[in-house]
Amino acid sequence: MSNAYEELKPCLEQAQAFQTAKILFEWDNETLAPKEAKANTAKVVGTLSGAYFCAVTDPKVKKLVEQCQKDRDSLTEAERAIVRELAEEIEKLECIPPQQYREFAELTARSTGIWARAKKENDFESFAPVLKQIVDYTKKFASYRVKKGQRLYDVMLDDYEKGFDVKTLDQFFGMLKDQLVPFLKKLTDSGEDIDSSFLTGDYREEDQEKIGRFFAEYVGFDFDRGVMAVSAHPFTTNLHNKDVRITTCYNDHVDDSLFSVIHESGHAIYELGIPDNLTQTLAGQGTSMGMHESQSRFFENIIGRNQAFWVPVYETLQKQFPCQLGSVSMERFVRAINKVEPSLIRTQADELTYSLHVLIRYEIEKMLIEEDLDVEKLPKIWADKYEEYLGVRPQNASEGVLQDIHWSQGSFGYFPSYALGSAFGAQFYHYMKKDMDFEGLLRKGDIKTIREFLRVNIHQYGKLKTSRQILKDVTGEDFNPQYYIDYLLEKYGKLYHVEMGK
Amino acid sequence: MSNAYEELKPCLEQAQAFQTAKILFEWDNETLAPKEAKANTAKVVGTLSGAYFCAVTDPKVKKLVEQCQKDRDSLTEAERAIVRELAEEIEKLECIPPQQYREFAELTARSTGIWARAKKENDFESFAPVLKQIVDYTKKFASYRVKKGQRLYDVMLDDYEKGFDVKTLDQFFGMLKDQLVPFLKKLTDSGEDIDSSFLTGDYREEDQEKIGRFFAEYVGFDFDRGVMAVSAHPFTTNLHNKDVRITTCYNDHVDDSLFSVIHESGHAIYELGIPDNLTQTLAGQGTSMGMHESQSRFFENIIGRNQAFWVPVYETLQKQFPCQLGSVSMERFVRAINKVEPSLIRTQADELTYSLHVLIRYEIEKMLIEEDLDVEKLPKIWADKYEEYLGVRPQNASEGVLQDIHWSQGSFGYFPSYALGSAFGAQFYHYMKKDMDFEGLLRKGDIKTIREFLRVNIHQYGKLKTSRQILKDVTGEDFNPQYYIDYLLEKYGKLYHVEMGK
Repeated sequence: MSNAYEELKPCLEQAQAFQTAKILFEWDNETLAPKEAKANTAKVVGTLSGAYFCAVTDPKVKKLVEQCQKDRDSLTEAERAIVRELAEEIEKLECIPPQQYREFAELTARSTGIWARAKKENDFESFAPVLKQIVDYTKKFASYRVKKGQRLYDVMLDDYEKGFDVKTLDQFFGMLKDQLVPFLKKLTDSGEDIDSSFLTGDYREEDQEKIGRFFAEYVGFDFDRGVMAVSAHPFTTNLHNKDVRITTCYNDHVDDSLFSVIHESGHAIYELGIPDNLTQTLAGQGTSMGMHESQSRFFENIIGRNQAFWVPVYETLQKQFPCQLGSVSMERFVRAINKVEPSLIRTQADELTYSLHVLIRYEIEKMLIEEDLDVEKLPKIWADKYEEYLGVRPQNASEGVLQDIHWSQGSFGYFPSYALGSAFGAQFYHYMKKDMDFEGLLRKGDIKTIREFLRVNIHQYGKLKTSRQILKDVTGEDFNPQYYIDYLLEKYGKLYHVEMGK
Repeated sequence: MSNAYEELKPCLEQAQAFQTAKILFEWDNETLAPKEAKANTAKVVGTLSGAYFCAVTDPKVKKLVEQCQKDRDSLTEAERAIVRELAEEIEKLECIPPQQYREFAELTARSTGIWARAKKENDFESFAPVLKQIVDYTKKFASYRVKKGQRLYDVMLDDYEKGFDVKTLDQFFGMLKDQLVPFLKKLTDSGEDIDSSFLTGDYREEDQEKIGRFFAEYVGFDFDRGVMAVSAHPFTTNLHNKDVRITTCYNDHVDDSLFSVIHESGHAIYELGIPDNLTQTLAGQGTSMGMHESQSRFFENIIGRNQAFWVPVYETLQKQFPCQLGSVSMERFVRAINKVEPSLIRTQADELTYSLHVLIRYEIEKMLIEEDLDVEKLPKIWADKYEEYLGVRPQNASEGVLQDIHWSQGSFGYFPSYALGSAFGAQFYHYMKKDMDFEGLLRKGDIKTIREFLRVNIHQYGKLKTSRQILKDVTGEDFNPQYYIDYLLEKYGKLYHVEMGK
């Protein structure tokens, strides 16, 4: 036992409490808070951020961390990870002047509201100046930390995915672009038309909610330790491993809310799988955004859009929507939920085109961060890229550059995680199929065995391992995006009767 | 301008942010949080309480407060009130060892959950040991602050109602007991039977919610600055003057939720009336619990159970519930909502017997605090007193001593406020009727003029005035409970054709 660690504990608890309070305010802000509350509440959130900042950058804490690093042999594995995370957090924060940190927290507390209104009213102009401020802060903060030989965008990428930089991602997205863009062209040219018209219609919100809750529970979301609510943009958040929250939103496409619920349940199951000795500590979350997305997209696509998944439960869905789906066979339904259709909105994108949406954001973020791209030009650049890679062009900012919440929250470097996560997931899937009769389990309604594999091999480690370490330990090799591409080419080649890539 | 005050500001903001976060956690805990979240979340709330405690009792803050008190001539009225409140808070907290303060906060964060379960399962035994701990802490904390000549319970009463002590309250409750208990006997012996059967029945929850929202808005609750949700026990909370929240709960008595919504709207309207320069400061809430209850009970009873109130809106209610109320005349409805019926549950009590419910709690609190009453004996003493004053006896703890949340939150000395508030309200009403055609306004649907009177004379002051000062400024005299008794005797004497008091 380390005395320094014992002394550090109350400081850690305090910092953690301030973060947890901020998370609750963010959740509340997105799901419930009244319209006019924003400005006053932003002050509170700003103050809490400031308190967190002071708690972490307190010189006394830094000294204790240094002592703990010397005492590392007497620390448990969890304690070592907590100290490491804290050391990184200190390094990340101490270079930022407290006043700037606080201003930025207040800015982002306000900006999500401004973004939401701008999106609703299709008014990019009202969001542009705020976005510019956010970009400037983000770049400034990264510039304080950039190391020799590192690029500015590397700093941001590393925050979400340790060990992944522009070089790795250029290569990854390059592979996607080279193999998926022409493959997509082949598919759309194949003339094969999948009917998915029955997924759109008069799906009542309360019925969608009911079936959403059923599927959340079916895949393993625990409502005794979780909450499901409605927000403009689906997300997952967690206060600790006994309180994990997901949101969804409803429209007349039943598959939108259905798969967003399964997606967010994947995130939630990760956080619900964090063990008690890690939760409420700096090491008690999913290890990275990419690993998080690997879980959510694994549940959404590899499990949820798998024909085998629907064998035991398609009837339940039909019973909830007898008029809309009563006469639709499971095979037609599964084809429909896997229909490839280049479209404008990322969160509604099919599995194949999804990573091309991410590719576009990656390229634009690089321009914003490294090439000083004027934010005013974003709508046009966005539209041009959609046209080039996906063959569709947004007619306004709401269905274009304003669609995602991330930038309004100051999250740059986050988007690549979505594609990385999909690739991690496919790499896991490749390995798991050797180890278990994956589709057989799904057909039996046994999600639990699959979930347990993920819990034991991924979730329970929290931040004890990096995503790269987990990949290595589970699959025996480093990150290899070819599994992902092969998975897509095989699945969609079959579905569209198109020859596999080349 | 005082330099000390400028220096104090960030400390005040920090303390305020911690309190606001605690309030949000409490709200969330009562309205949404999943079942198993309690223990982990209690740790966070405990840490936030500890941080608040440290922020307020910081020696640097105390020095600044002392300097501000010297600089008082250069402070605005609001600043002076804030400094005064802070000085009182410091005095209240600094005598409590930080460790005990934190333990107590964690205890009460857990105990409301234990109480809720005990109430649900009618299991007083599971709550008794926790209650005992809470009583012990509360007494210990009061003992640190008790002044010479003061009684222990005085300390607690003063926290909720400055300037009111056991002596004043013994006199107040003595008057109620002497005049209302025999009057109630007369009423119940009168043989006059009011039919209220139509208030109970198949009132669908979603319809009750709809009409609840209508009436909240009708009396002046602003949904752009407020939220309405469901909890086991209705309450109001506020983060600031742009985010005020009420809850209600639904059962098959339509009047329960209806009047709880109007009651909580009264609380909410008080907080919505706090001006921008006071909100988010220590002086930016209703001045006392009694004054708060005066507003909520004013809206509920003096406005809401007034025949004139229903003239413009009874039809709206009928339209929402055509089967249940379509054939019930407004006169019958108004008689029904004013029916006097000695009953077991305080929150469902009629206006007349209500203060007798409070009298019982006052007497029991005095015994718990000053006579070391064994908590195990509570269910029997509770039942005996109900039998004596109200002529009804609870058959179990859920409909007896477990019905209220207050003690599980450590709120002792709070209950008297309900009766005091009713009395304050009647005193205001007596005066207002001289000043305006009160019932005429209600008949015209003009709640705004009444609400504006309350805002200008009461709400806008926050804690700048005590409840006694407000009473004096508005009515020209000190607290005088006889107005309340006269109001009840007159109203219910008429309704039941019974000779007025004596």
